[in-house]
Amino acid sequence: MIVSIKKGTDENQVQNLVEWLESLNLEIHRSNGQYETILGLVGDTSHVDIDLIEGLNIVNRVARISEPYKKASRKFHPDDTVIDVCGNKIGGGNFQFIAGPCSVESTEQICSIAEDIKNAGANLLRGGAFKPRTSPYAFQGMRAEGLDLLKKAREITGAPIVTEIMDLSHLPLFEDVDVIQVGARNMQNFELLKELGKTDKPILLKRGLSATMEELLMSAEYIMAGGNSKVMLCERGIRTFEHYTRNTMDISAIAMLKEKTHLPVIADPSHAAGMARMVRPLALAAVAAGADGLMIEVHNDPARALCDGPQALRPEEFAKVVKEANAIREIMTKF
Amino acid sequence: MIVSIKKGTDENQVQNLVEWLESLNLEIHRSNGQYETILGLVGDTSHVDIDLIEGLNIVNRVARISEPYKKASRKFHPDDTVIDVCGNKIGGGNFQFIAGPCSVESTEQICSIAEDIKNAGANLLRGGAFKPRTSPYAFQGMRAEGLDLLKKAREITGAPIVTEIMDLSHLPLFEDVDVIQVGARNMQNFELLKELGKTDKPILLKRGLSATMEELLMSAEYIMAGGNSKVMLCERGIRTFEHYTRNTMDISAIAMLKEKTHLPVIADPSHAAGMARMVRPLALAAVAAGADGLMIEVHNDPARALCDGPQALRPEEFAKVVKEANAIREIMTKF
Amino acid sequence: MIVSIKKGTDENQVQNLVEWLESLNLEIHRSNGQYETILGLVGDTSHVDIDLIEGLNIVNRVARISEPYKKASRKFHPDDTVIDVCGNKIGGGNFQFIAGPCSVESTEQICSIAEDIKNAGANLLRGGAFKPRTSPYAFQGMRAEGLDLLKKAREITGAPIVTEIMDLSHLPLFEDVDVIQVGARNMQNFELLKELGKTDKPILLKRGLSATMEELLMSAEYIMAGGNSKVMLCERGIRTFEHYTRNTMDISAIAMLKEKTHLPVIADPSHAAGMARMVRPLALAAVAAGADGLMIEVHNDPARALCDGPQALRPEEFAKVVKEANAIREIMTKF
Amino acid sequence: MIVSIKKGTDENQVQNLVEWLESLNLEIHRSNGQYETILGLVGDTSHVDIDLIEGLNIVNRVARISEPYKKASRKFHPDDTVIDVCGNKIGGGNFQFIAGPCSVESTEQICSIAEDIKNAGANLLRGGAFKPRTSPYAFQGMRAEGLDLLKKAREITGAPIVTEIMDLSHLPLFEDVDVIQVGARNMQNFELLKELGKTDKPILLKRGLSATMEELLMSAEYIMAGGNSKVMLCERGIRTFEHYTRNTMDISAIAMLKEKTHLPVIADPSHAAGMARMVRPLALAAVAAGADGLMIEVHNDPARALCDGPQALRPEEFAKVVKEANAIREIMTKF
Repeated sequence: MIVSIKKGTDENQVQNLVEWLESLNLEIHRSNGQYETILGLVGDTSHVDIDLIEGLNIVNRVARISEPYKKASRKFHPDDTVIDVCGNKIGGGNFQFIAGPCSVESTEQICSIAEDIKNAGANLLRGGAFKPRTSPYAFQGMRAEGLDLLKKAREITGAPIVTEIMDLSHLPLFEDVDVIQVGARNMQNFELLKELGKTDKPILLKRGLSATMEELLMSAEYIMAGGNSKVMLCERGIRTFEHYTRNTMDISAIAMLKEKTHLPVIADPSHAAGMARMVRPLALAAVAAGADGLMIEVHNDPARALCDGPQALRPEEFAKVVKEANAIREIMTKF
Repeated sequence: MIVSIKKGTDENQVQNLVEWLESLNLEIHRSNGQYETILGLVGDTSHVDIDLIEGLNIVNRVARISEPYKKASRKFHPDDTVIDVCGNKIGGGNFQFIAGPCSVESTEQICSIAEDIKNAGANLLRGGAFKPRTSPYAFQGMRAEGLDLLKKAREITGAPIVTEIMDLSHLPLFEDVDVIQVGARNMQNFELLKELGKTDKPILLKRGLSATMEELLMSAEYIMAGGNSKVMLCERGIRTFEHYTRNTMDISAIAMLKEKTHLPVIADPSHAAGMARMVRPLALAAVAAGADGLMIEVHNDPARALCDGPQALRPEEFAKVVKEANAIREIMTKF
Repeated sequence: MIVSIKKGTDENQVQNLVEWLESLNLEIHRSNGQYETILGLVGDTSHVDIDLIEGLNIVNRVARISEPYKKASRKFHPDDTVIDVCGNKIGGGNFQFIAGPCSVESTEQICSIAEDIKNAGANLLRGGAFKPRTSPYAFQGMRAEGLDLLKKAREITGAPIVTEIMDLSHLPLFEDVDVIQVGARNMQNFELLKELGKTDKPILLKRGLSATMEELLMSAEYIMAGGNSKVMLCERGIRTFEHYTRNTMDISAIAMLKEKTHLPVIADPSHAAGMARMVRPLALAAVAAGADGLMIEVHNDPARALCDGPQALRPEEFAKVVKEANAIREIMTKF
Repeated sequence: MIVSIKKGTDENQVQNLVEWLESLNLEIHRSNGQYETILGLVGDTSHVDIDLIEGLNIVNRVARISEPYKKASRKFHPDDTVIDVCGNKIGGGNFQFIAGPCSVESTEQICSIAEDIKNAGANLLRGGAFKPRTSPYAFQGMRAEGLDLLKKAREITGAPIVTEIMDLSHLPLFEDVDVIQVGARNMQNFELLKELGKTDKPILLKRGLSATMEELLMSAEYIMAGGNSKVMLCERGIRTFEHYTRNTMDISAIAMLKEKTHLPVIADPSHAAGMARMVRPLALAAVAAGADGLMIEVHNDPARALCDGPQALRPEEFAKVVKEANAIREIMTKF
């Protein structure tokens, strides 16, 4: 970390800062220039609060050279992490399709879709039981009952289940869930992350709408610091000024995250676009950019199709995307 | 709400959509144009999911004419809400200063600052006991013990206390707190908002880093829908592309929120800028833009000042801001 | 277009607005609700200034139902535009690779790269003669001389040339250029766009760093309104809060623009990422998302490679991307 | 500038980079760490292209310690620049109101408004002759004729005139203009900036919608590098995700720019908000944040008021803002 001190700063203040930094077990290299004094901080700076230093009146600018995460960093763990979900591997060259409805609605619905997506090539079943909704007047999900229906669908198809937790107090209900999803709005719910770090469940951690990649990795670090290193990251679109699409899928994040971390990176093209007709192009793009998996919303009720699934594919559309995605994956290692 | 249907859409699909909308108790006005069909939705559209409709393949575009919030809307409640915190009124022309340290650290520290800010003109004491930190390796606050110290400071100075809740499970600890703060990262922690809606405590709801004003108002609506209408909104800077400042204080939001809602609007210039030297200009700007209160970080330990409070003012600096802010408030009603 | 008028607005003011709107040849449908009055504007609203209406004190909100562009809109021109550059077609199922160095530097350099990219599969040669640079102290390009070198390279290889214009006054120099590129910073240089609309040259119009898709299409409309409909749009990354990548490539824009317009859509993965190692994943993603062409920076001097081309591929790397991109294109029509 | 080189990089490549940096007249300090090699670049780094280095495959990260601008930097020119426009000083404690209509429309209109704003307290008259419009179908201004009308209004009132240039080719028409305005969309029209640098006219340089403060200062540097140091910066709102306001006025930028540069900083609350009812709060906020001047749109025709000036104040409203702003300015130096 590099700290630039303003010209004309009182020497006592500089000394105070140097001593405080040394008390954090850092070695300080100082060079006095004509227009500023530069402090180079050598050692483990992952626990140094960059905002705190940047806010000091005597400081021009602070630059972090090393990333503030360690367990999630590829620098310290060069090999890909491979996560095994009931025999289905993700990461390190292993790819998975995770599919299912936005919300669990009935035994019939979830079991039928579960069969469909399995036949189409997805090994993992997703479905929302607890639903975070912007409006208090919108449907909030079947909650505990929805979890039970997901387990029934798992019994029938054998597909492990992926579902979102919304609050720490619900954790006991998730004991028999195979992958716990942390939604975008909870990416910095640190109390929740800490508790998930004490479990041994695979966690699917979604990137917040305005979270930087570094913040996403810091949230993964929270879980890993607790002892649970089975974290999958999920790019699902970020918030920008553009309004023709609900969110802007950050396709560069897929390639960049795979450079920065050893954790698997999944893409969620359904939420990134918010419209079914954009799912296929975004899904294929994510595969071409190097994603380790796709999470896609699929619905199956043609009678309600019109209003049911704004961002969901029909099973036959999903099956086509699976074939195309697999074909693109083959090309990626061919030339 | 207006829905534009694509040219050439199958009439059955349009009919399905119309019937579904009618089942939501809306009256549908249809007009068939040369290039599109327009549906006008009349009635209470606050419970209609705009994203769901926008995602349909047959839809060009959806436009909401009415806001999706009701209890928070000035349209339905023209008069300013005045919130009374132990005799200190906020809103409807009443202004409050809320001040104190970033984190509670010791009895001595919090009591001393409490005296200082009271003398300077602040009636409410703030202080962090539970601290949301981006890094798992950073200080996480004194937690329950910090709440006890805040109460001690209240005993001595009589100033009501404002402090942040980080998780629903901590709610019992906040029974004796005067104002519960919901932090920016929890603005869409809907389970938490629902429970706070069942209390009768004043809530200080901070705007998320990338939350639109509408989303902030929807989160207020969550609390109000539960029966608690004592909500104060707090602008604390949004995330933009700019990097010379940590966040970008959305000064327009202060005036615009006061137009859209009857709830009081507070500004937090300490977090918006992230540097002490920006607190004064932003605080005065917020007052000039019409804020109902200011929440400002103040520290009091000159020996540790260098590293302690990157975004905190010293008590004498705070006292000057109080005087200037009050003088500006007078001008605002003078001409 | 829908205009919502505030409750309690003086009837004279509403009448003034209605009359003014009627004077723009619009038919006005009015409906008086309990909380607002809604005006529906029927007719050609492409010339109505939405910001002007939105700014009126009596107006709650304005929603545009129809897009403000016409010549660029697929609604009015359903068939893909195919642009022919000296026999090389782009759009309507025709794909082109445009490649070459960031800056033209010498005869030897440009001719050698021109041969390389042709052998690798690119039919069009790009190269910067006039270079827009953020700093006045940075190299500004070889300018007119650079254009001459590009023409020499064209003589030798037969590849048409694509190069950027920075100012209207340089237009005479571009008479013998095959495709004129408008850079991101000039996307709203309206005087330049108007003049380009009077030429019959194909124009490659890059999206501004913070331009919405609608603004990009409005800039295309400027050129087309002048009579030149040979416009190619180019997605090259937008500005967001993320800082691990220089820009965020808006992959959804490729699919969405192709829905909104009949014009060809090109992707520039070199500028979107700003680093050579991100070019391949972004290029392949753009193809998978449906782009009509790729514009890629290629350099050829291994000795200077280290410092020469931060965002440029070596010819053999480019050749691999061409093969992979072509293979992905085949898959896209296979299933 | 600090460059972090990836672990395991070939020593030859590091040497190449070091030599190339040395060829730019920089002294290189190298320190080899366990996980990365750090290069410290000492000397004048303002001409080093940070993007170029950041894009290299061997580089982890680059951090600029010194700003890339010099002539615009307060570090090298601690004293405020004071700009004199025909006897009206701006900067260094001198404040000016610049007011007038959005567009010049007729002799009568411009002369009448010129009188009004003068009486209200504005010394400088603004008015648009050349109008940059998003749509090719919108009114593009009276152009050269509009400039003549402005000059007539100046004759009558004596107020110097401020008006926008849209293209380099129009420069001869601006010979008799007192302050040349560069609009937000032209902030990075580098050819235009270079030519303005050769004039001796005061330039009012507006910040681009998505320009960082650093880019704004680099554009000022372009003008100053040409020899013209009479540059005023203007904050007029930036583009964010928020949609209740057209732009987000970056109030922190006013205070931060005044820290970084010695140039005067003006605020334009009319464009920042896009609605007349937001002009007063934003104007007063800008003054409280330390602005050196305000540029405000004023219209004067009550009959056409409804549709004429969405972001314009009436003269009496403007006069009130002038009084309030002056009163706030007094407070700022009182305590």
